[in-house]
Amino acid sequence: MAAPSRLLIRGGRVVNGDSSQVADVLVEDGVVRALGRDLLPPGDAPAGLRVLDAAGKLVLPGGIDTHTHMQFPFMGSRSVDDFYQGTKAALAGGTTMIIDFAIPHKGHSLIEAFETWRSWADPKVCCDYSLHVAVTWWSEQVKEEMKILTQDKGVNSFKMFMAYKDLYMLRDVELYKVFSWCKEIGAIAEVHAENGDLIAEGAKKMLALGITGPEGHELGRPEAVEAEATLRAITIAGAVNCPLCVVHVMSKSAARVIADARRDGKVVFGEPIAAGLGTDGTHYWNREWPHAAHHVMGPPLRPDPSTPDFLMNLLANGDLTITGSDHCTFNTCQKALGKDDFTKIPNGVNGVEDRMSVIWEKGVHSGKMDENWFVAVTSTNAAKIFNLYPRKGKIAVGSDADIVIWDPKATRTISAKTHHQAVNFNIFEGVVCHGVPLVTISRGKVAYEAGVFSVTAGDGKFVPRKPFAEYIYKRIKQQDQITSVESSDS
Amino acid sequence: MAAPSRLLIRGGRVVNGDSSQVADVLVEDGVVRALGRDLLPPGDAPAGLRVLDAAGKLVLPGGIDTHTHMQFPFMGSRSVDDFYQGTKAALAGGTTMIIDFAIPHKGHSLIEAFETWRSWADPKVCCDYSLHVAVTWWSEQVKEEMKILTQDKGVNSFKMFMAYKDLYMLRDVELYKVFSWCKEIGAIAEVHAENGDLIAEGAKKMLALGITGPEGHELGRPEAVEAEATLRAITIAGAVNCPLCVVHVMSKSAARVIADARRDGKVVFGEPIAAGLGTDGTHYWNREWPHAAHHVMGPPLRPDPSTPDFLMNLLANGDLTITGSDHCTFNTCQKALGKDDFTKIPNGVNGVEDRMSVIWEKGVHSGKMDENWFVAVTSTNAAKIFNLYPRKGKIAVGSDADIVIWDPKATRTISAKTHHQAVNFNIFEGVVCHGVPLVTISRGKVAYEAGVFSVTAGDGKFVPRKPFAEYIYKRIKQQDQITSVESSDS
Amino acid sequence: MAAPSRLLIRGGRVVNGDSSQVADVLVEDGVVRALGRDLLPPGDAPAGLRVLDAAGKLVLPGGIDTHTHMQFPFMGSRSVDDFYQGTKAALAGGTTMIIDFAIPHKGHSLIEAFETWRSWADPKVCCDYSLHVAVTWWSEQVKEEMKILTQDKGVNSFKMFMAYKDLYMLRDVELYKVFSWCKEIGAIAEVHAENGDLIAEGAKKMLALGITGPEGHELGRPEAVEAEATLRAITIAGAVNCPLCVVHVMSKSAARVIADARRDGKVVFGEPIAAGLGTDGTHYWNREWPHAAHHVMGPPLRPDPSTPDFLMNLLANGDLTITGSDHCTFNTCQKALGKDDFTKIPNGVNGVEDRMSVIWEKGVHSGKMDENWFVAVTSTNAAKIFNLYPRKGKIAVGSDADIVIWDPKATRTISAKTHHQAVNFNIFEGVVCHGVPLVTISRGKVAYEAGVFSVTAGDGKFVPRKPFAEYIYKRIKQQDQITSVESSDS
Amino acid sequence: MAAPSRLLIRGGRVVNGDSSQVADVLVEDGVVRALGRDLLPPGDAPAGLRVLDAAGKLVLPGGIDTHTHMQFPFMGSRSVDDFYQGTKAALAGGTTMIIDFAIPHKGHSLIEAFETWRSWADPKVCCDYSLHVAVTWWSEQVKEEMKILTQDKGVNSFKMFMAYKDLYMLRDVELYKVFSWCKEIGAIAEVHAENGDLIAEGAKKMLALGITGPEGHELGRPEAVEAEATLRAITIAGAVNCPLCVVHVMSKSAARVIADARRDGKVVFGEPIAAGLGTDGTHYWNREWPHAAHHVMGPPLRPDPSTPDFLMNLLANGDLTITGSDHCTFNTCQKALGKDDFTKIPNGVNGVEDRMSVIWEKGVHSGKMDENWFVAVTSTNAAKIFNLYPRKGKIAVGSDADIVIWDPKATRTISAKTHHQAVNFNIFEGVVCHGVPLVTISRGKVAYEAGVFSVTAGDGKFVPRKPFAEYIYKRIKQQDQITSVESSDS
Repeated sequence: MAAPSRLLIRGGRVVNGDSSQVADVLVEDGVVRALGRDLLPPGDAPAGLRVLDAAGKLVLPGGIDTHTHMQFPFMGSRSVDDFYQGTKAALAGGTTMIIDFAIPHKGHSLIEAFETWRSWADPKVCCDYSLHVAVTWWSEQVKEEMKILTQDKGVNSFKMFMAYKDLYMLRDVELYKVFSWCKEIGAIAEVHAENGDLIAEGAKKMLALGITGPEGHELGRPEAVEAEATLRAITIAGAVNCPLCVVHVMSKSAARVIADARRDGKVVFGEPIAAGLGTDGTHYWNREWPHAAHHVMGPPLRPDPSTPDFLMNLLANGDLTITGSDHCTFNTCQKALGKDDFTKIPNGVNGVEDRMSVIWEKGVHSGKMDENWFVAVTSTNAAKIFNLYPRKGKIAVGSDADIVIWDPKATRTISAKTHHQAVNFNIFEGVVCHGVPLVTISRGKVAYEAGVFSVTAGDGKFVPRKPFAEYIYKRIKQQDQITSVESSDS
Repeated sequence: MAAPSRLLIRGGRVVNGDSSQVADVLVEDGVVRALGRDLLPPGDAPAGLRVLDAAGKLVLPGGIDTHTHMQFPFMGSRSVDDFYQGTKAALAGGTTMIIDFAIPHKGHSLIEAFETWRSWADPKVCCDYSLHVAVTWWSEQVKEEMKILTQDKGVNSFKMFMAYKDLYMLRDVELYKVFSWCKEIGAIAEVHAENGDLIAEGAKKMLALGITGPEGHELGRPEAVEAEATLRAITIAGAVNCPLCVVHVMSKSAARVIADARRDGKVVFGEPIAAGLGTDGTHYWNREWPHAAHHVMGPPLRPDPSTPDFLMNLLANGDLTITGSDHCTFNTCQKALGKDDFTKIPNGVNGVEDRMSVIWEKGVHSGKMDENWFVAVTSTNAAKIFNLYPRKGKIAVGSDADIVIWDPKATRTISAKTHHQAVNFNIFEGVVCHGVPLVTISRGKVAYEAGVFSVTAGDGKFVPRKPFAEYIYKRIKQQDQITSVESSDS
Repeated sequence: MAAPSRLLIRGGRVVNGDSSQVADVLVEDGVVRALGRDLLPPGDAPAGLRVLDAAGKLVLPGGIDTHTHMQFPFMGSRSVDDFYQGTKAALAGGTTMIIDFAIPHKGHSLIEAFETWRSWADPKVCCDYSLHVAVTWWSEQVKEEMKILTQDKGVNSFKMFMAYKDLYMLRDVELYKVFSWCKEIGAIAEVHAENGDLIAEGAKKMLALGITGPEGHELGRPEAVEAEATLRAITIAGAVNCPLCVVHVMSKSAARVIADARRDGKVVFGEPIAAGLGTDGTHYWNREWPHAAHHVMGPPLRPDPSTPDFLMNLLANGDLTITGSDHCTFNTCQKALGKDDFTKIPNGVNGVEDRMSVIWEKGVHSGKMDENWFVAVTSTNAAKIFNLYPRKGKIAVGSDADIVIWDPKATRTISAKTHHQAVNFNIFEGVVCHGVPLVTISRGKVAYEAGVFSVTAGDGKFVPRKPFAEYIYKRIKQQDQITSVESSDS
Repeated sequence: MAAPSRLLIRGGRVVNGDSSQVADVLVEDGVVRALGRDLLPPGDAPAGLRVLDAAGKLVLPGGIDTHTHMQFPFMGSRSVDDFYQGTKAALAGGTTMIIDFAIPHKGHSLIEAFETWRSWADPKVCCDYSLHVAVTWWSEQVKEEMKILTQDKGVNSFKMFMAYKDLYMLRDVELYKVFSWCKEIGAIAEVHAENGDLIAEGAKKMLALGITGPEGHELGRPEAVEAEATLRAITIAGAVNCPLCVVHVMSKSAARVIADARRDGKVVFGEPIAAGLGTDGTHYWNREWPHAAHHVMGPPLRPDPSTPDFLMNLLANGDLTITGSDHCTFNTCQKALGKDDFTKIPNGVNGVEDRMSVIWEKGVHSGKMDENWFVAVTSTNAAKIFNLYPRKGKIAVGSDADIVIWDPKATRTISAKTHHQAVNFNIFEGVVCHGVPLVTISRGKVAYEAGVFSVTAGDGKFVPRKPFAEYIYKRIKQQDQITSVESSDS
């Protein structure tokens, strides 16, 4: 029997980034058709309409995870959550869209990489997705391909690495050129901000000192290495007035650099991730090697235990803007590649499933932000920055029916034993979360409900994104216009 | 002939704090009835429907000026813009609601003051208004009256003075009690943050040095005096977890104190004003005494010429949240009371008419913020904080039809010769503003259009505000609940 | 047999605040007579000359503890270390001068208080001492007495309390007057910077919540209460350009306020104390009530465990300038006065004996500062600020022979079982200190050597201090002169 | 007739970095032989002893200018003040030692460069001098030469450029290696901190915009470019715990980065220069091209007019430590090389003659620092950092007799018409300086007195400097030792 083609979410508190209201939500053909009080007259529901009772519950836009790496071939291994398992887990956690990264090797075609990732994802995804594309080298070809990607392929964000020397890293002058070009074509630049030279030297130094365990991963690239690169990226982007998003902000000092730049009027955004908001780097000193190794990611979690609280305050305050997970999972046997040398531990942690719960717990339940700002940082702001708004990130007539029914009073305990991710470890193991996703609706269909999935590989679609997102480019264009008028006046 | 009872604003770009869309707006009975594309079929408008063409224009929620003092008896004089003239000027500038202050003298009834102000305003206002009430002393009576004001009179904000020693000033221990009580009854505390003792001593010192001109006004209460009180107010409010709004933030250092407190997770808001965003304190050294005296207000404008830009950056960034004007105007002859002694110059500047234009010019035209954030800081945020949202601060079905049609491409030059305020001086004289309010609709009627008013005294209404605004109190309550659970656990 | 009247300290490394040199030091009649290489020809020492071999050791100016409260009648009790026991302990730790506080009650004579403290100290002290005088109220009499104290009694520093409401606390306007007067008479103002109103309210709140244990002491007056008052004091002092010393800086935020003020050019100094540099406020949560209670002092130690390191960095960097101990000890039975109510626990901790060792360990042994800066922060800077330089705080020809022979390679473990203080608890219990005072010479005589004292009550003397210390007043005077020239020019 | 071989400076106030005293100074054979009251009995001076009356005057250690470029071949030209003219001018201004830079081209020998500069300087200098050596490339040869220079040639400081791309600039990984090696051999690393890639791109951008005048010099490399590189240098140096000196700190943001790093315990020093302390970058917009061009230097002076005051506050506070001039002068005809293209204007300004006066005027006369701190920042601190102390930077028995008799009450007006520098422009033109050097004694001889020189080329000598200066390395070594103990313990 086919699933009912129409859904009515009845009596919930509909929470948008802007405000909340108690209302029914009528879903048809994958979009929200109506929003209001008492959309259904008393009596039985008409055939073909499924009614979901949301009384006492919150009805939220599905989460947008701005940062995942499904089935990513990396460091001699491949992350175990593929686009199928990964997006299923996302749905279980209330996330209805992910943005993954297509990452070409130096010298290789960006478009080919993009198509490769599409070919991996399209047949497998259970929820909508989009792709950032990494720029790992610079040439006329790259320039041309970036243009094609923005104009024809639905890509409006490019990621540059200041780390992973020799592999993905760009030098400052290349960053300058890429940033200039991003702005020209209306994309937003993203950076992995760590000083790759210092990481390489730091790792050598640790190994020379005989420090081979996971703690060496952090000791060799402490937060100064991240803060330095963050300021550098902001300075270079500022030189060409290109909008910038610093991904996976992991440390207090890096976050402070971003917040200060925003005070100075820079168009810069910071993306903390579930891991950084929910746990810390003291785990690198855990006596159980696998436990420690499962926390290894770049940039590292920080040993200062006040870090998550600090990052959450800045997220609550608007100094940080969007949230991802950097979901990139490796099983213990894969992590074991680095048993005797932390530099060989595949980098990555889980997060796609638990991001929403972790932010609710540490952000909303703690009283740092309200339900509206929760929606803003888990979907709305991302939708605005990546030009998906108001199709995504909002429950409104005409918006995509990517919706979560959220029980703010229920609790659940995170565990690798019960999670829906392929990986055999969960960095949030044992965390009790107030706030539980009960039902997740993707593209107008119930995809997950009370522990049961109704999904098929390929249910999700690639969502193209147009360049020159107003949320970021309106200011940029105005600034440039004013500056040019002033120049010609003088 | 009666004005048409229905309006259709056609084809404009409707700008809310959240996002913009090209849409028609149908207004009926003072509220927005419909919002969407092509609400009117082709052909003639039906009888009783006036159509306003807004093609190429912006359609904004009317501004909310959170800080005015109309016909305020102060310093031996009375401000010349009364509730009639002042609200007319507001409408001419695109502002459709003001929040004024009822200020009892020490020992006097708050409710009586409230009723007095109501009696002044109700017959005169041309647009909607509301009242903050000042708490200038502390007693059981005051406590009881505050409760009545919040429960029965529509007041959810109280203002306390840390300046105006002996006249209005409260001591720290009184602030502590008032803040505690504000929180108990669900109000937001507002403070005029300057150290009143230091102001008194500073003034004495200036006069003793023979400095009697307007520059002595600033020299005797430099920005450290403001920053100190700002930190003190935040610390006291923090001790009882009471939400706080610091009004008329005039200096870089005070603004920084607020921004830092927000980074620490404090529920604190800052209100810069048109004067501080649009001009600076170098005018106190102007050779023309009247010119200088017309800039005298408390806290003073600051001589550091980079101040307005700094404040605008923080407003654009969200570190400062709402905007008022502190409109409190005195004619030159009134200012002359302080000809030989700056302490006798009645404090106050204009702003109610030009606030919207000044913020557009320095904020939007400069590229610091976009049109949506402009709406947020001129109306939406205020509506949320003062619990008027979404009735005010938003153009949506069901919202009050307080609307401005704004031409972002037109320019006008501010001048006392052409402004609609009673006062004979304008601190923004000569400023060329891109962005002009063409039509202002108040309570569903065209009140101002192309220089012509269609208003009658008393057209506006008092708008009561309920306590426990969700935008501020949801977090506060959650924080308290968590804290109390933690306490009982330990 | 009388002690030899002359001493030769041979072959040590003489460490001053400025630089170090290997040299002999010849002491005669209580002062340094000569300093240089090989002052003694080979062969036997002449009669009456005792030679102390300091080869491989450091020869330091004796420490100046800028903050003690010996036999202080306080909170219904009296601190157990009297001027005899307290100064003996000081000598054992390498401190050769203390500055205590004469504290009159409100309404009482400052001079009487001063004479009372003199009468307690003079017959008992084993090392030199001086007295700050507290100004706990304001009147013409106070003003006159302050003048007499500076001109005739050897007092050039006055301490004002912003805490201890009703008991010692001054209001802002009183602070303004006292600071103005301090400057007029050439004294330095000292403040205990905590908001006394907030402390009083915070304590009530804690008790109302049923929190009666030592942790309530900190929870009721968290570091914001200290930072607020610190900024306030600096602002008020700045208004009259009076030099200011903030005593017992206990928190990161208060220290940052001081450091920022110094960056702005303010003449302000911060005094961290041994307790704050050597331990932290997590002890308030210790399960043993006496342990927790023995850490109770005002302002409290802070629970943030990174505080001591932060304060030491600022001391090393020059943002904080001098160091005291706030030595004010109560035995467990005295602390027990507050068994059921933390507000009744007599406030105070030990420190006079261990200050030098703690700073060496956490400052020098950790690599944060060198031996010269150690001398600067333990004696030289204090001598300069309090106008004792170069008589104290330096080993130079003509200086007082207050000298310590310090073994940087030895270690000792601090314990109440072995310390020389009267109190039955030591907050540094178990701390292993590299750097041990071997011999302490006071006024030219060996007072302590390898655990043995050679002291008699009254050996020490009151050291009068002149007003207008150049180190602080040269700048102040110049600033005032420039300002006045500029005023008269304009 | 030979100059008297002995000098007695009588009755002056001898000012050291530490303290001041009224004393006579006896000079013999180029060093200070005695210091004390009344060294000369009443009556005539003995033959061969010249007596200089310094009553009412200050007697200061001669200044050490830590940063000059005499006769520097640069940008297709050569700076016009050679070692003769430049050191004469230095003496006239009260500076008795300069430290110049030997700068090899990439691929060339450091030792050869060093010898070349020696060959230029030795026959010409009129005062003592020393040489920093620039490391402009990296190889085993460079490494070996650095070692030889420190061990055998008297060089303990190496300068690295983060600017001057392709010419002198090092990449991060090279900086890492050079800093590591500096530490190994006991030198201090110096950096020109500006992002060379951004400068190159910024210049291109300016020219593309048609901005070819001197203002383009600053617009293309605004202060963010300096602050970024400053943080980067500190981060890299921090990674290897190498002591660092950031030369010519020109902007508020860069200075703040240094001050913040010091608060974090970093061993980093900042060197502002006379130009940055005494003037600002508004001159780049001067309508007279030569005037503007004569201010062109790298990093540029900053247009923010509050910069000099800010830098002086940080110098007074100890956040900045030493002062140079970056004296590198070009005549108008040389500057004209860049008439149509600011990138071709030879970079450099004057300062060696006026540095002392400018710092006195803006620092001491303004009341920001006292006479002792003036000595500290103009000579003592430099002597300590570069391991010349107490031979230089102090007036003490045994110190070099490099002495200035300074009249704090006299004034002079700086002008190119009267200065002793070869260059035909003075960036301090018209500045009235309180504080005038009356007599300058170099190596025990009066070299300059009341406008008259008594010098011969070659009078000065090269002063070798030993590695591992205690002032910087004592902490570094201790930190490393502690860290290594902790590592081996864990």
